[in-house]
Amino acid sequence: MRWWGWGREDRQVPITEQLARLLDESLGLDGIERSPAALEDVKLPKATLTKRARDRLVATVGADSVRTDPESRILHSGGKGYLDLVSMRAGTPRGAPDAVVYPDGHDAVLAVLAACAAERIAVVPFGGGTSVVGGLEAIAGGQHAVVALDLRRLTGLLSVDRRSLTVSVAAGTRAPALEAALAEHELTLGHYPDSFEFVSIGGCAATRSVGQASSGYGRIDQAIQGIRLATPAGELAPAALPASAAGPALRELIVGSEGVFGVITAMLLRVCARPAQRVYEGVVFESFDGAAEALRIAIQDDAPPDVVRLSDELQTRLLLAAGEGGGRRAPLGRRGRGAVLAIVGWEGPQAAVTRRRLHTLTLLRRGGGTPIGEAAGRAWAAARFTSPYIRDDMLARGVFVEQFETATTWSGLPALRSAVTAALIGALGALGTPPLVGCQISHVYETGASLSFTTLAKALEGQESAQWRAAKDAASAAIVRSGATISHHHGVGRDHAGWAAVELGALGTASLRALKAVLDPAGVMNPGKMILPG
Amino acid sequence: MRWWGWGREDRQVPITEQLARLLDESLGLDGIERSPAALEDVKLPKATLTKRARDRLVATVGADSVRTDPESRILHSGGKGYLDLVSMRAGTPRGAPDAVVYPDGHDAVLAVLAACAAERIAVVPFGGGTSVVGGLEAIAGGQHAVVALDLRRLTGLLSVDRRSLTVSVAAGTRAPALEAALAEHELTLGHYPDSFEFVSIGGCAATRSVGQASSGYGRIDQAIQGIRLATPAGELAPAALPASAAGPALRELIVGSEGVFGVITAMLLRVCARPAQRVYEGVVFESFDGAAEALRIAIQDDAPPDVVRLSDELQTRLLLAAGEGGGRRAPLGRRGRGAVLAIVGWEGPQAAVTRRRLHTLTLLRRGGGTPIGEAAGRAWAAARFTSPYIRDDMLARGVFVEQFETATTWSGLPALRSAVTAALIGALGALGTPPLVGCQISHVYETGASLSFTTLAKALEGQESAQWRAAKDAASAAIVRSGATISHHHGVGRDHAGWAAVELGALGTASLRALKAVLDPAGVMNPGKMILPG
Repeated sequence: MRWWGWGREDRQVPITEQLARLLDESLGLDGIERSPAALEDVKLPKATLTKRARDRLVATVGADSVRTDPESRILHSGGKGYLDLVSMRAGTPRGAPDAVVYPDGHDAVLAVLAACAAERIAVVPFGGGTSVVGGLEAIAGGQHAVVALDLRRLTGLLSVDRRSLTVSVAAGTRAPALEAALAEHELTLGHYPDSFEFVSIGGCAATRSVGQASSGYGRIDQAIQGIRLATPAGELAPAALPASAAGPALRELIVGSEGVFGVITAMLLRVCARPAQRVYEGVVFESFDGAAEALRIAIQDDAPPDVVRLSDELQTRLLLAAGEGGGRRAPLGRRGRGAVLAIVGWEGPQAAVTRRRLHTLTLLRRGGGTPIGEAAGRAWAAARFTSPYIRDDMLARGVFVEQFETATTWSGLPALRSAVTAALIGALGALGTPPLVGCQISHVYETGASLSFTTLAKALEGQESAQWRAAKDAASAAIVRSGATISHHHGVGRDHAGWAAVELGALGTASLRALKAVLDPAGVMNPGKMILPG
Repeated sequence: MRWWGWGREDRQVPITEQLARLLDESLGLDGIERSPAALEDVKLPKATLTKRARDRLVATVGADSVRTDPESRILHSGGKGYLDLVSMRAGTPRGAPDAVVYPDGHDAVLAVLAACAAERIAVVPFGGGTSVVGGLEAIAGGQHAVVALDLRRLTGLLSVDRRSLTVSVAAGTRAPALEAALAEHELTLGHYPDSFEFVSIGGCAATRSVGQASSGYGRIDQAIQGIRLATPAGELAPAALPASAAGPALRELIVGSEGVFGVITAMLLRVCARPAQRVYEGVVFESFDGAAEALRIAIQDDAPPDVVRLSDELQTRLLLAAGEGGGRRAPLGRRGRGAVLAIVGWEGPQAAVTRRRLHTLTLLRRGGGTPIGEAAGRAWAAARFTSPYIRDDMLARGVFVEQFETATTWSGLPALRSAVTAALIGALGALGTPPLVGCQISHVYETGASLSFTTLAKALEGQESAQWRAAKDAASAAIVRSGATISHHHGVGRDHAGWAAVELGALGTASLRALKAVLDPAGVMNPGKMILPG
């Protein structure tokens, strides 16, 4: 992964001319292309790891597995959020770990955590490095130094139970490698977050990730049957079973714990037979609210598509301009600019896909939808993991680009969408950078849905952090005031920690702090993330 | 509910002559009918509640809402497990609360808990009173007295969101009252545990209850969107939403907490449209293992029936003898005594039921099943809530009767069934009371299933407790050794607390204790249940 942006060095996905023109016109860009700093010019903070602590880490995992060179530190300086990228491109990362440690298994992770607790070193667990909420920022908290604990050596399918449709997998396994290994057994996890190309499966669990086909395969927490957590206090590994009434579900405390209790080292996952067929297609509606209502009815009538992406009018325009709506020919036909596009998709055995597709489409038609065929679906599928690449190009053009996301009940959806949109327009407008705010329903449930707000504005160069903070605070306040969740699929990290405390309540926050005191008494695990100190 | 057994005073369900004969012959019963003691002869332990403490409770909820009369105490002395009933019938309950308190709402519950914490009174939350694992036993722990906190005044549907398919309900609402209220809105929760007639919805949440139609409507934890817990430290009420990535799921800590953290006072539940059609029918197989395999394939091929009850050979004989297999005509046909009966059922819109039924039956036929029609299904449906009534009659006849239950993966199922069956036969045989052990798959998942073991033997009169303990320990040890869960749907209570600690592990147990210390610092909440003191 390139250090200043997304993707491998050899791949770039520039924005289309049409999208570039739309952005230039709407946001008043200057047309200048900004280059990231050179790697050798990146300013790293001075390392504070004591020699004794470093020696202890070396004694624990071997000299080859403790790296302090600048490139290793730079590559582990934070994740891939807007602020991460803006500061990396400027050559001034927001902190950096003093060292990167590469344990080779569960026991080695336990040993590293024990060493870090004894030596008062903060630990940032590092999987795919794709956090967009500051979950990987090198924050020492009360400790004297910070290490990134890179899980790239904990990889692979550990066991396959074809009869029970479960697999055991090491937490550092990247999602594409996992799918490739599962494909050899004709299986799939079906978990495709936007970060699919780089994300680790342990990172998905730690952040309660949700894949693009979530209504088909479920959220990651629904696939997790068992989970193994290495903590400074030892191992926490509740029984891995299909279901249990043996008290509270500790598994659900480990899932979403974002490294503040320990490091997830392995998981038992429910998998599925590999789908024989995948069909994605576009359905056009007259309005977002009408389309949402049609989707709600379909989902509640037991006819959910496996993939649902409903864009509002602006988001639809952005998609089409980006070439993700089925090519240059405007697929909205005579419906014109007011129309909105939904991408819906089904995966599974051919007969089931045919039947389920017919069922969903019948209901969507009844709700005012017009299917426009598979070209739009193919375009979406071809571009399904490109948005972080495109973001890099936008950053180069001086664009502020962020996704705010949340979820609420179907009843609460219209007011939530209005409130967040208005908050973003208000906050960014007040700074003299009126934004484009597109909205998408990206995941659906019987009782509600998630909303993602793509927000684009002219970046306030040199003041990106203040500009971002203004937008973030405005959106977050609107979300919390609406009674929605501060995150449906990005997680809490550093960015949402204060807001999550509101959502959890005082006693909920105290409960998580008490758990942390048991599992991480020295407070070395991922300080400054998820739970703020009391 | 009658104090010495199950059901209202005006309803009895005697066992059939055929079942009586089978039991007499198999277990060597003496044919004598034992009557329970008279209510006025029940020996209650001396109350230890101080006057000051009682006055404080009265000041908190009013004199009418603090009962110390013998009948109130007797009616709140434990639940409906085998040992509860044996001791109640003998007129010697296993402890009794010193008083019963009837708060009238969430705030009153909070006030009672604060008063009990200050006055060092243990609190046993009491919903429907149906625990079969000792979850309601009046144990003072380190406190000076015990009160039962009866939730019968916290009832009713608090709100209905038809669009989002969610309802808010007070925790003391009984399941039939909830279904009746939902029916007025053409909705259903679809949660039908064996205890349906009496269970409270808060009790279902507190014990992670699973209904008979669990593969259709899900377990109770899957229906719970939000939950409100009154604790001695205040209210814990994480945001109630369809999905969230805002950290660990505190909701999943409250669900299954069995009153040891606080009292569940209200919940937000996902509901469904009321089914237009319900079809239950019998399918006969040559063997239990073959039937289990056919069910596994159907469920993993996305063709789960909503209700699944697969009985092994002995359980099938017991069902048929009890008249629950479709009348006196043996429905197994020429397959004879080796055959096993599965009851399968579907609920929903007529077209969906027709399609889904066809899909399941096609796969079950392919797996060697022979559908025998709806008579068997109707017989099952008519008797679906009668087993606790029949148990009373068995107790009168001097029968030891207990259900042991667990769950594991499909791969682990055959060995688990053998191990538990052998353990029960061994333990009860060694006492000179060789048992009948029937087994049932009662709930199915993509990755595994639950097993329930109906165990019948001649009671060792006067030594029922030792006999029960021998069987319980043997079954529990076999379950834990097999890596299965100590409870799939009964909960932990007093009976499973030691075994649950093994399943949770040392650090898991320590985590729950730390949570309890935050939520219940005085340790008044349901002592001796779920988490054993450290």
